[in-house]
Amino acid sequence: MDWMLLGLLAGAITSSGFIPQLVRGFRTKKLDDISLYMPLVLISGMTLWLLYGIMLHDISIMIANSVGVSCNLLLLTMKKIY
Amino acid sequence: MDWMLLGLLAGAITSSGFIPQLVRGFRTKKLDDISLYMPLVLISGMTLWLLYGIMLHDISIMIANSVGVSCNLLLLTMKKIY
Repeated sequence: MDWMLLGLLAGAITSSGFIPQLVRGFRTKKLDDISLYMPLVLISGMTLWLLYGIMLHDISIMIANSVGVSCNLLLLTMKKIY
Repeated sequence: MDWMLLGLLAGAITSSGFIPQLVRGFRTKKLDDISLYMPLVLISGMTLWLLYGIMLHDISIMIANSVGVSCNLLLLTMKKIY
């Protein structure tokens, strides 16, 4: 089995995990129950993961965490706007 | 620089990202704005990451995703209870 494929699949699933949250937030325009610190801390951590992926030349880690950072930046922006 | 240390730090930060959300949920007893699918999908994806970490013998990936899965299982349980 190709482990890179497993990593890419894992990355695709975790990245898409934030999408239902973004859709729900966009539809309800309510994100009161979401802690401000969750996206903030996740953005910091995922930026480090991204760096880790770059250092290890691991494409799965790079892609998953780039998408993760983008989703959480969007979540943070939505939280600020609504 | 030791990349394993970077991975461990990244893992510690992303894992702790869910803690403020758990604390907030526990205090307010309200998780209505949280999409049910976010923890569900993250648990599936992080389980695959865990497998990926085991296959690559990457301790940072293993620890981060074990804690991540636990936090999201707890979040899911809280969402079901409240």
